Amino acid sequence: MEIITNIKQLQQKSISWIRQGKSIGFVPTMGYLHEGHEALMKAARQENDIVILSIFVNPLQFGESEDLNSYPRDEEHDRKVAEENEIDVIFFPSVDSMYPKPLSLELSVVRRADVLCGKSRPGHFDGVVTVLAKLFNMIHPTSVYFGMKDAQQIAVVDALIKDFNYPINLTTVPTVREKDGLAKSSRNVNLFDQERIGAPFIQQALQYGRQLVENGEKNQAELVKKIRQFLENKSHGNIDYIELLSYPELEPIELIDQQVILAAAVFYQKARLIDNVVFNEKGEKTLG
Amino acid sequence: MEIITNIKQLQQKSISWIRQGKSIGFVPTMGYLHEGHEALMKAARQENDIVILSIFVNPLQFGESEDLNSYPRDEEHDRKVAEENEIDVIFFPSVDSMYPKPLSLELSVVRRADVLCGKSRPGHFDGVVTVLAKLFNMIHPTSVYFGMKDAQQIAVVDALIKDFNYPINLTTVPTVREKDGLAKSSRNVNLFDQERIGAPFIQQALQYGRQLVENGEKNQAELVKKIRQFLENKSHGNIDYIELLSYPELEPIELIDQQVILAAAVFYQKARLIDNVVFNEKGEKTLG
Repeated sequence: MEIITNIKQLQQKSISWIRQGKSIGFVPTMGYLHEGHEALMKAARQENDIVILSIFVNPLQFGESEDLNSYPRDEEHDRKVAEENEIDVIFFPSVDSMYPKPLSLELSVVRRADVLCGKSRPGHFDGVVTVLAKLFNMIHPTSVYFGMKDAQQIAVVDALIKDFNYPINLTTVPTVREKDGLAKSSRNVNLFDQERIGAPFIQQALQYGRQLVENGEKNQAELVKKIRQFLENKSHGNIDYIELLSYPELEPIELIDQQVILAAAVFYQKARLIDNVVFNEKGEKTLG
Repeated sequence: MEIITNIKQLQQKSISWIRQGKSIGFVPTMGYLHEGHEALMKAARQENDIVILSIFVNPLQFGESEDLNSYPRDEEHDRKVAEENEIDVIFFPSVDSMYPKPLSLELSVVRRADVLCGKSRPGHFDGVVTVLAKLFNMIHPTSVYFGMKDAQQIAVVDALIKDFNYPINLTTVPTVREKDGLAKSSRNVNLFDQERIGAPFIQQALQYGRQLVENGEKNQAELVKKIRQFLENKSHGNIDYIELLSYPELEPIELIDQQVILAAAVFYQKARLIDNVVFNEKGEKTLG
């Protein structure tokens, strides 16, 4: 395994692999790797000749009041996890090399972005697509891997790839969970004990909502109201949003008559957690 | 020479050439090829194993009141010119294949864009960088070729390449001119006879300005005033702008104490023509 910090060097590596006819799987991360990331790495390892993992806490996708500085980091641990998962290259650039001066161009997401996390994190997805476009141009991956936990991110990356004709396969991997159902996240370490106890109720609330649909509930507003009541009593955090939208279009709907995403975000004192479930009009889970 | 209209087919061709270790020169155009384009093709032919020419009148870079519909087209002629210049592939996509549905992402130029042509063509350079990003992702060129006539376009493409880490060389080629000095342009055919007679004065006015600097003029405002007086009497068109800026930064300056671009645009009845000259603080031509 090689650790590369230099952009030019990464580009030279990638082009030489492409010239050898090798497929490149790319797993973009912000580090502090957990089993969720490992699921991505394993999928990439299985499907490609070369696997490149990037670790970059991208300041562009953090809002001013967000947790850029408290975002957890552990380079030593990440290196070990990458090695165990037979990663070929960790790309670990500095902020200065990624953004040597203010950008003259801006890439922004104008559809699918003003719902769910986009609503409470203005500019977040602009930062995500900007860093991904840069990384895609450095790596030229055959396939890129994302977890279903960030379902909106998947919808937005899908738009980036299609709108700009990147010849890249977008592969989604199911959310990995703790035994109690809490979605794995690098931010989980920032939960206080009581918060940690309440956090699994996010997923429980979403499953409760799915079951209500299974039992015949068709009304979006009714459903969201019931889930909110369920979650408010149990999560120990402040609900940022509970939303039900068509998936993957992320359009608002009144009646549940198609595949939908039911998603929630909860603010804790030092973390904001998200989760979702995707199911059809019968309440049958269809993704992730 | 092959004519490709299908995006996937172009991408497969390109990747196969890259796998063979071949360099790809890319000449993006809107067709109606003239000697200016031929200079780009010749440079690309000389420096690369493969040369791809794209012909696409990109609606995204035309304003609502602009000449998208009257933009001249001649596929038969273009094919002949490309063949003569030993082009390997003409990429000739339809508008529908380039923009099958409204984009979910927007790429916009936030620096270097609100001067010169950007001022009177809002959104123009956004359209330019958007289509180029798409074409870059289809072709993965080693080098891309532009003429100095569109000096601001070169500055903007430079920003696209640097901001988004495209591993592409940007090559600029001097403006090709008619015998009377008029810069070659596909739009020249849209000039009425009297307009055609006046049009060479655009370049003459810019050269006159350069000579004033050679003779000691240092004041930007004075210089632009004198050029305006010179051109207003002679060009048979309406001056859109005459501007003097630092180059390539395109920043406004008061005193001419560095490399600058002196550029003009003139509206005629059915065409808008541009030209420029780049020189140093002594009035010595430095580019193009």
